[in-house]
Amino acid sequence: MKIDGTPYRTVWVESSDGWSVRIIDQTKLPWSLEFLRLTDVRQVAHAIQTMQVRGAPAIGAVAAYGLALALREDSATDAMERAAALLVATRPTAVNLRWAIDRMLTRLRNTVAGKRVAAAYDEAARIADEDVAQNQAIGRHGATLIEQVHERKPAGAPVNVLTHCNAGWLATVDWGTALAPIYTAFEAGIPVHVWVDETRPRNQGAFLTAWELGRHGVPHTLVSDNAGGHLMQRGDVDLVIVGTDRVTKAGDVANKIGTYLKALAAHDNAVPFWVACPSTTIDWTIADGLADIPIEEREASEVTTVTGRGLDGVVATVRVAPTSSPAANPAFDVTPARLVTGIITERGRCDASETGLAGLFPEHA
Amino acid sequence: MKIDGTPYRTVWVESSDGWSVRIIDQTKLPWSLEFLRLTDVRQVAHAIQTMQVRGAPAIGAVAAYGLALALREDSATDAMERAAALLVATRPTAVNLRWAIDRMLTRLRNTVAGKRVAAAYDEAARIADEDVAQNQAIGRHGATLIEQVHERKPAGAPVNVLTHCNAGWLATVDWGTALAPIYTAFEAGIPVHVWVDETRPRNQGAFLTAWELGRHGVPHTLVSDNAGGHLMQRGDVDLVIVGTDRVTKAGDVANKIGTYLKALAAHDNAVPFWVACPSTTIDWTIADGLADIPIEEREASEVTTVTGRGLDGVVATVRVAPTSSPAANPAFDVTPARLVTGIITERGRCDASETGLAGLFPEHA
Repeated sequence: MKIDGTPYRTVWVESSDGWSVRIIDQTKLPWSLEFLRLTDVRQVAHAIQTMQVRGAPAIGAVAAYGLALALREDSATDAMERAAALLVATRPTAVNLRWAIDRMLTRLRNTVAGKRVAAAYDEAARIADEDVAQNQAIGRHGATLIEQVHERKPAGAPVNVLTHCNAGWLATVDWGTALAPIYTAFEAGIPVHVWVDETRPRNQGAFLTAWELGRHGVPHTLVSDNAGGHLMQRGDVDLVIVGTDRVTKAGDVANKIGTYLKALAAHDNAVPFWVACPSTTIDWTIADGLADIPIEEREASEVTTVTGRGLDGVVATVRVAPTSSPAANPAFDVTPARLVTGIITERGRCDASETGLAGLFPEHA
Repeated sequence: MKIDGTPYRTVWVESSDGWSVRIIDQTKLPWSLEFLRLTDVRQVAHAIQTMQVRGAPAIGAVAAYGLALALREDSATDAMERAAALLVATRPTAVNLRWAIDRMLTRLRNTVAGKRVAAAYDEAARIADEDVAQNQAIGRHGATLIEQVHERKPAGAPVNVLTHCNAGWLATVDWGTALAPIYTAFEAGIPVHVWVDETRPRNQGAFLTAWELGRHGVPHTLVSDNAGGHLMQRGDVDLVIVGTDRVTKAGDVANKIGTYLKALAAHDNAVPFWVACPSTTIDWTIADGLADIPIEEREASEVTTVTGRGLDGVVATVRVAPTSSPAANPAFDVTPARLVTGIITERGRCDASETGLAGLFPEHA
């Protein structure tokens, strides 16, 4: 999407040299827009590890380019396998990272060493382009929902969409998942306004979602995570669209902590609650999300501290809790399928149920 | 309650001089414990205005002492009325402030000027003591609920109570409202553990509730506002107790933004959701909270900034949102009576319904 009028992706090959890899340093957002030029696989591993790039699809694509950079140094099979292992180890739980590296290796193992560099750049570009195409399809299928609301509303009244965390273009190669329908509707000229949940404790809503919507020009308003229920009670939310880290075959949805509370409020106020994801996010091996999805407990310091920019312009971390108070930090929660209106995938929309998902993806039924 | 072993109230008369008024400077919490000595009514007005003292019952008692200080300077009726007007104007919407000043004036107008100072200190002390007694009664009626859970749990297992915002002793003269049952149970030796919602945007949970529980020695864990639903899904919350700013005669509850989301989660997980308040918080003139309680919209800067203590020990305010993103800041929400298990008042517990409240307070029926 655009940053102040200029189109960007989260990862691309530098045009001036044709081989180095460029990314946006997301740890600097929203304070400053800084681009990194990655020239070897160690820099790529570091960028993933330190979350300069984050979001499963974005990580997958950057890692793929990281393997291409490794092959420029040494295209032998041994070196390639070592580089692949280095990349996979950066974020051990990121399913998409392993998937991207496995896909790269499948092609490269069948390529002679002399042609591996070109093949690696080609395959990484395919991975990136396919992610974009997939998200554009999610965008089309989701934008229909926004358009339907728009047609029911008085002329000129914006469609109010609430979202939680960041499932925007910054988390993918482009377009995003939850935000793809919003960008698609916006580009089609439908008046849309986004309620952006701050998303404590890591503030991805305030830091990333508000930033990318603002830079692309999409009207939005930041709210504390506590506000969404009240907004729905007052009729100020037409629909909710969120992303997800994992969907069970029965339609239970694991997503950033606090998603479940918004789903409850949506249900209580008859506001449609949609989940947008590529089909690779669906885990066909489990049904009961509450029983079978382990929830990552992250560091207490994410709750007890906040990073922001001081009046002096310097970015600083401040403590926001008494020093002696312990904190707990479950990072995700599970929204039961009964609270989910439906799932938006690259293949279309379906009910959040075993029947709904199997109908759209019969090959997994 | 106690601060590191020493009992405190939020307001008291300095024992060394017998007339000056001491309060805790709550704007310094949790970073440092600082006491203020207020010696004239202007200092009292300033303390209320700048939220050095906050919480409706605490403000009422401090304002009452403020009138006593004013009378020390000039006990004539004109001066007294001017001082009363000054105090009431500090927080125009604080019902308890006006109530306390009206009560003081009712007594003082019937007192000759020469005896007004003594009468004012006496009446202010009564207001403070009655607040304490009322909260102790709320504590007893609420502690029974905690005790009942304790009896059902395995020996030694703590009763887990979740609370939102600060309705603790810092908001009253002592004991608090929502926290009174917790302190009462704790003092009775019942193992209790409190999940403290951070309560963005003003962080009263992290800054005040976590601090006062910690200093008194009550086990607690700070969590982001997003975590409560997940904790309830996992069976980690036995009951929720919150305070309230206004209860309708039908049992709808206005409280800090985000309360409604926790009530929804409690209902979805069959966790009892209790509201603690003195009966003065019940507004017998309205029934439908969603229709009839106006919700204060506060400054966006509360959402876009956070105050905390830097690594250098200096308390600083940092911006936590892109500079161009607007923010909305509804400060309260309304939890419908259907989601409230019951109300804990100084007179006992009742259903959150017209019948329940009228049964406990037949004089208002």
